[in-house]
Formats: sequence, structure tokens, C-alpha cells
Amino acid sequence: MPLWNIYHPVGAYDLETKTKISETIVSFYPMLPPFYVGVVFHETPQDSLFISGKPTQDFVRIAVDHIARQFPDEDLAQKWLNHMAKSLAPFTEDLGYRWEAHFDETPFKLWRIQGFQPPLPDSEVERKWKADDAASAYDPAS
Amino acid sequence: MPLWNIYHPVGAYDLETKTKISETIVSFYPMLPPFYVGVVFHETPQDSLFISGKPTQDFVRIAVDHIARQFPDEDLAQKWLNHMAKSLAPFTEDLGYRWEAHFDETPFKLWRIQGFQPPLPDSEVERKWKADDAASAYDPAS
Amino acid sequence: MPLWNIYHPVGAYDLETKTKISETIVSFYPMLPPFYVGVVFHETPQDSLFISGKPTQDFVRIAVDHIARQFPDEDLAQKWLNHMAKSLAPFTEDLGYRWEAHFDETPFKLWRIQGFQPPLPDSEVERKWKADDAASAYDPAS
Repeated sequence: MPLWNIYHPVGAYDLETKTKISETIVSFYPMLPPFYVGVVFHETPQDSLFISGKPTQDFVRIAVDHIARQFPDEDLAQKWLNHMAKSLAPFTEDLGYRWEAHFDETPFKLWRIQGFQPPLPDSEVERKWKADDAASAYDPAS
Repeated sequence: MPLWNIYHPVGAYDLETKTKISETIVSFYPMLPPFYVGVVFHETPQDSLFISGKPTQDFVRIAVDHIARQFPDEDLAQKWLNHMAKSLAPFTEDLGYRWEAHFDETPFKLWRIQGFQPPLPDSEVERKWKADDAASAYDPAS
Repeated sequence: MPLWNIYHPVGAYDLETKTKISETIVSFYPMLPPFYVGVVFHETPQDSLFISGKPTQDFVRIAVDHIARQFPDEDLAQKWLNHMAKSLAPFTEDLGYRWEAHFDETPFKLWRIQGFQPPLPDSEVERKWKADDAASAYDPAS
């Protein structure tokens, strides 16, 4: 968690830009171990992305699964989404791309990292995983 | 919303057919601004799609996220799905492909288009976006 | 159902290994018709998968949708996930890859196979589809 899938036009982003985008996305989750944050860039040719029923080369489509945290209330969600949108503008609308992003929240319980059941939010183990930026064995029952 | 991901065999669809499929999908959502409808075609080699544990080249797998609308009741959902299945038959079973499609409904509130919070269903702003087939600034609080 | 999307480094898995992985995944669902189990392998170049904001070539990221069955209780879910993790270790951590898997549960009702509404869990029709490893017409209302 989270997993970001970014469908973008061919050649839209070089490695440096993808790195900046990914670092920006990591910054959206300051409470999480950074290695929780996965971003997959899908270079999508014009004949493979259709918007309004037409082959499209000026659109960035983002689909995200949130797992580790759910928004506790609507107000916080909207603030976070506005911050997200503003932070990604340099890589989307400022480059002339139309764009859309949607987020799903999937069950915390149905999740494994390195085979481990991830520690509870804000637990001591999660803080250790964050400090190490790596998973390690612990007793989920403790 | 919606986002359709279509995993299909290599060479299954040319640009003309993909365009027809995408136009058909747009027609499933007559109440929505057409640019809400995104379709990503994933050409999937035989050694990358497995059905029944076997590499497969005769199967079209479709995964969809619905965001802008949720089905208000079961009956309507089944009618819509039957219409969907019949309309896509010319691009699936009629071409000799086995196929499967499943739909998730993700939270309306966790969604941004061009950075904007999308307007409420059937609102005046949504009608404007539909007429323009484009997003534009408005006051979500109004 | 289920649909497994596996994002893996370039060259991580040959056809034989992908087949073993897919057969292992089929074995997780002994009650289901095998053709319900779809696995898509996405070979993801280092410059297209970012973990912790860095381009990454040692990580396998798995995202799964469950449709046909939902876990009836937490305990069973954790046992199943532990079995899943142990069974996939030979293809992930034992090969030196970090990895993460998360599962969503999407609505049973929003699903079509070969255009058919899939039969109810543990029904006679589902048993027939399992025996045939194929879908066939039936009356959902009966």
C-alpha cells in the first residue's frame, strides 16, 4: 500500500521525471514506511488508451489502491486529494496533459509484505519498519 | 470513471476494432460526460496470460472500476450487465474468444479529474461537462 | 475471479516458472472451476517500477481481485494468506526478491463469464462448470 498505476503517453516521462513523480507520491504518505509506496508506470501507446471512445495521446490516467490507511473522514480526504492534485499538476496539466485519478480502499486484513502480516497503523513495529525502510519478522499476536 | 482494463491476445484487435469497442463502451454510459470513459487495451502475449494455470491465447479478460455511479439495485445491475455482455459479444465470443468481465465500485469521493472534484451526479455542472466533453472549474461548495 | 496481476522484474520468470506460479495459484482455490483463475504477468522494466521513490528491479508486486468468494471470517483469511505467502516464497523471497501482495473483494453480482451470470457458490451448475472447466448456458432464475 499504496499501489499507484499510472497510464501515460509514450515518451511523456523520462527516468528523472518518473523519479520526481515517485518521490512526490512517497511524500503524500509521511507516516508510512517508504517501501510501502509502489508506483508502476505504464507507457501506453495512442492506439491503446481511449478516452471518449477515441485513441488518445494527451491523457494521464491514474488508478490507486489504498491499503494501509483509510480516510477517517470526508473532510480530510478532500484536503489530501486537493494537495495530491496540486502536487502532481507539474507532471500533468502543466505539461499539457488532461488527467484523472481515482482511489480505492482495499481491506487492511488482506495484505502481505514479504510474507508478513503488516503491523498495525502507528504501532511500534510499523515505526521500526519505517526507520529501516524494510520489513522484518515480528509476532503479529503480541 | 469508469476505467476499463482489457487484457487481450496479441493481434486480437486492430485500431478500427479498438475504436468500435471503445465507442460501444461509451454507449453504456449515456448519462456521463464521454471523457469520463477510459479504456486501456493491454496486448498480452500467450506467455503472460494464464487461465486454469495454462498459458492462454484465446481469452479476453476485462476488469472495470465504476466510480461516478453505483447501481441502485440488483435488478438494474443485471439488466445492464446483460446488455453489456450482448454488446461486446461481437468482439469476444463471436471472434472465438472466451472472456470474463468483473466490475468494482470505488468511492465517488476519492476521485479527481483535471485536479477538480467531479460534480455530483445529474447536477448542472455535470451536464455542462457532458455538453463540453471537458472538465472546467466550478465551486464544489455551491 | 480471481484475477491476479503480477508486476515483476524483466527476465525474472521464464515460461516454465510462470506456469508453476499459475498452477500454484490455481491450487489456492480448490473449490473453483480452474478457468475462473486468471493470472496476468507484467514484465516491468526497472525504470517503470518505483518502490520508496526509487527505480527498482528486485521487487515483485502482486494485486488481486477476489470475486467468486469472500472470506467468511478473519481467522480463515489469515490462514489462507499465510498458506499463499509460504507457497509463493520459492518464486519471491527464495529468489532474492522483495514482494508485496494485496487482495480486494469485488461484488459477486457485478460479474460475467462468457456473457453468463456465474452460478452461485457450491451450486450444481458451479460443480458442472468445474467438472467441464468451462462455462455453459443455464437458467440463473431456476
